[in-house]
Amino acid sequence: MIIKNGVSLLHSPNNRMLASSAVFRRQEFLIRCLGVGGQSQQFYRKSIPRTMALEADAENILRAITPTLDLARHKGQAGKIAVIGGCREYTGAPYFSAISALKIGADLSHVFCTKDAAPVIKSYSPELIVHPLLEESYSVREEDKKAISEKVLTEVVKWMERFDCLVVGPGLGRDPFLLGCVSEIMKHARQSNVPIVIDGDGLFLVTNSLDLVSGYPLAVLTPNVNEYKRLVQKVLNCEVGDQDAAEQLLSLAKGIGGVTILRKGKSDLISDGETVNSVGIYGSPRRCGGQGDILSGSVAVFLSWARQRIIAEGDLNISPKSPTVLGSIAGSALMRKAASLAFENKKRSTLTGDIIECLGRSLEDICPAK
Amino acid sequence: MIIKNGVSLLHSPNNRMLASSAVFRRQEFLIRCLGVGGQSQQFYRKSIPRTMALEADAENILRAITPTLDLARHKGQAGKIAVIGGCREYTGAPYFSAISALKIGADLSHVFCTKDAAPVIKSYSPELIVHPLLEESYSVREEDKKAISEKVLTEVVKWMERFDCLVVGPGLGRDPFLLGCVSEIMKHARQSNVPIVIDGDGLFLVTNSLDLVSGYPLAVLTPNVNEYKRLVQKVLNCEVGDQDAAEQLLSLAKGIGGVTILRKGKSDLISDGETVNSVGIYGSPRRCGGQGDILSGSVAVFLSWARQRIIAEGDLNISPKSPTVLGSIAGSALMRKAASLAFENKKRSTLTGDIIECLGRSLEDICPAK
Repeated sequence: MIIKNGVSLLHSPNNRMLASSAVFRRQEFLIRCLGVGGQSQQFYRKSIPRTMALEADAENILRAITPTLDLARHKGQAGKIAVIGGCREYTGAPYFSAISALKIGADLSHVFCTKDAAPVIKSYSPELIVHPLLEESYSVREEDKKAISEKVLTEVVKWMERFDCLVVGPGLGRDPFLLGCVSEIMKHARQSNVPIVIDGDGLFLVTNSLDLVSGYPLAVLTPNVNEYKRLVQKVLNCEVGDQDAAEQLLSLAKGIGGVTILRKGKSDLISDGETVNSVGIYGSPRRCGGQGDILSGSVAVFLSWARQRIIAEGDLNISPKSPTVLGSIAGSALMRKAASLAFENKKRSTLTGDIIECLGRSLEDICPAK
Repeated sequence: MIIKNGVSLLHSPNNRMLASSAVFRRQEFLIRCLGVGGQSQQFYRKSIPRTMALEADAENILRAITPTLDLARHKGQAGKIAVIGGCREYTGAPYFSAISALKIGADLSHVFCTKDAAPVIKSYSPELIVHPLLEESYSVREEDKKAISEKVLTEVVKWMERFDCLVVGPGLGRDPFLLGCVSEIMKHARQSNVPIVIDGDGLFLVTNSLDLVSGYPLAVLTPNVNEYKRLVQKVLNCEVGDQDAAEQLLSLAKGIGGVTILRKGKSDLISDGETVNSVGIYGSPRRCGGQGDILSGSVAVFLSWARQRIIAEGDLNISPKSPTVLGSIAGSALMRKAASLAFENKKRSTLTGDIIECLGRSLEDICPAK
């Protein structure tokens, strides 16, 4: 769903709906006005970026990957998500991410956090399964670190095979010992081919240790303005350029070996180094903290569903094809719709909890359960 | 917006609306009856106070300083507030203050409290970021006090530059060691030009250590009846005089070097030593504990907004000009409107939480988001 060197790659039968969209028509008009092709090719290359993101057909994608409900199915088949995050300082973020996964339709949502954070996160909701397994430096003696690190990994790994997706980072904090343990968990998830959505302090970790995700096609990074800036500086060794946003995002995703990056903004931009999609529908002007956590939980669920369906059915006859990109598009669209519904009602006083309460209605509006 | 020696200072174009208000007309009538000016001047000086507060045009001020919402903005730009408070004994007050800031439209709201208070405050709401950093005497050995005090300051100071405003005092308690640490935090905030709203036990602290705020134009004190009495006794060395309330408040604010004081009462009175404004609109006869905490969080947000706008745009073409006074007027008006809406519904059973639930609708009534 990209235009490279002015040539649209959209003319597959699956993209007919997109091709007829207002956004697509505007962009084609723009390209014609700029005289792309023939004599003007040289001018075009110099004056506009070579890669442009096109608006994804997000609601159709969401419908295509959301499983139908069936009385014959059993617990767990609609998704088992685990959030790795929550420390002495932060408890809200992992809760928001994990509860969002449940509200969208996952069957089970776990949180792996520190011992201090666990009782608080448990108190937010009895719906979550909260494991007080992680440790921070302040509670571990130097001589015990190796043994405790191994114990943490053993405990978490016991669960790993059961999960359809991990979310790493909401409220994780930046304690070096804890981040060391989480690195080991990520390596194990990768060996087990468990998809990983990375946000917040998880992005701090992978920006400093790109090897953790580099070349892993089941990784999704969901940076905000500042996190994106640090990634671009680290990987591309330059500053963020808003003129060539799609081109730069494509280079960044390629630069990290084809991971998927969801760059949050006025429109969300999504690339896996092959395609660049944007999701600009709905949205809210309220910027209260915690919305990124809803998004990470949301992407985790849709990514799991897209992957399950692709594994079961092969080609879903939608474009793009990658489950990480499909999950990112659907997760972004749902989050934006829920935020817009919450804002309609609560205006400036909208909080993250209000948006979470709108996830169910938003999903039902786009993709009715029956 | 004051009358000094019987001369109204209200005749600027911006004050036309005020000049036509019922309150203003009543006060002019009173002054005429008392024969202010000419032969009666001597009599007037002896028999009525020289300074009278006039009702502020609170709703217009609130509209003028509240930022418009914009899809292009990112998290944090609508305000980052920190409440310093919460100890083993008190946990509700810092929660009320911090959650009110979010409900009015701040993007992020932090609480810095003691280790005992943190899990409880966290459990009230996942929307707040709660730092368990402060310590009370009972948990600190004498020989460790210096090192722990330095550690607390280092940890809090790391965050300081990110905040648009501090609220010092809700549920702080009066432990001498803890108040010593908070004094150091306040000195650092002042060096960094971070505005400080001071309420509750924070007022106990500054009444005994006036140097902490004296001469700092970005400090707002929000005393209730008893806290005001102690301030007047300490600074003016006399008792509270309700006959010359505006004059005395003006002297008090001048006496502390031009800090802003919001004296809570039937009408709230606000002075920075230059002007005296009153806010008497709306309000409720219910006096449940915790309303002062809503006010401190509310003033913090509006003060941050007023300051941001003045820094970005210069003169806002409203009067008064000071961001601390503008923030106090808007915060007072919003709190009073929310209290009145909650009382309409809940009558004698109105609690602070009910008032907080009315903040959003109150703001929307006065200043619609779209």
